[in-house]
Amino acid sequence: MIIVMGKIRAAASDIESLYDAMATQMATTQAEDGCELYVFSRDVTDPNVILISERWRDGEALAAHSKAPHMATFNRAIGGIKIEEISVKAYDVSGVRTLIGE
Amino acid sequence: MIIVMGKIRAAASDIESLYDAMATQMATTQAEDGCELYVFSRDVTDPNVILISERWRDGEALAAHSKAPHMATFNRAIGGIKIEEISVKAYDVSGVRTLIGE
Repeated sequence: MIIVMGKIRAAASDIESLYDAMATQMATTQAEDGCELYVFSRDVTDPNVILISERWRDGEALAAHSKAPHMATFNRAIGGIKIEEISVKAYDVSGVRTLIGE
Repeated sequence: MIIVMGKIRAAASDIESLYDAMATQMATTQAEDGCELYVFSRDVTDPNVILISERWRDGEALAAHSKAPHMATFNRAIGGIKIEEISVKAYDVSGVRTLIGE
């Protein structure tokens, strides 16, 4: 299992201009084989920050995602705004436990 | 390193009533020893969903967090709204790599 977490900082208006592209990217990616979670969300304390939260079955699924046509489409959308900061990291998971719920 | 990811589903108005409590919880938790990331964020496609994103240096830091007084305060705030769904999982991290940025 692989977790991907990331952060994008941009002007609030630029972030809002990406909402349709983010919704499309979420829907198409969530349908990919091996995708267990893929969400864009906005920091409740900072309207200039988008978080990226992903969970993948394995490295093969994540690698396939990076080559998917909708990924290129989304990257073009992102390329259309002024990104002030972006960082994305992948974490290899060796164990999981449920703290609350299922 | 430990990643915690979670999801809370509630009415949008209930979520908005928690914004001050979430901001306080973020600020106090981000100041804890061993806390590397702690953010509440809202799904850009669903105003009824809050994501929880955390990264901790180790299990000791996460355990100390769970016993912090501000955690109890925040749990009381959460207890004041109708939670429709909540799930939180902890992931042990065995490797990290940067995909974009630093």
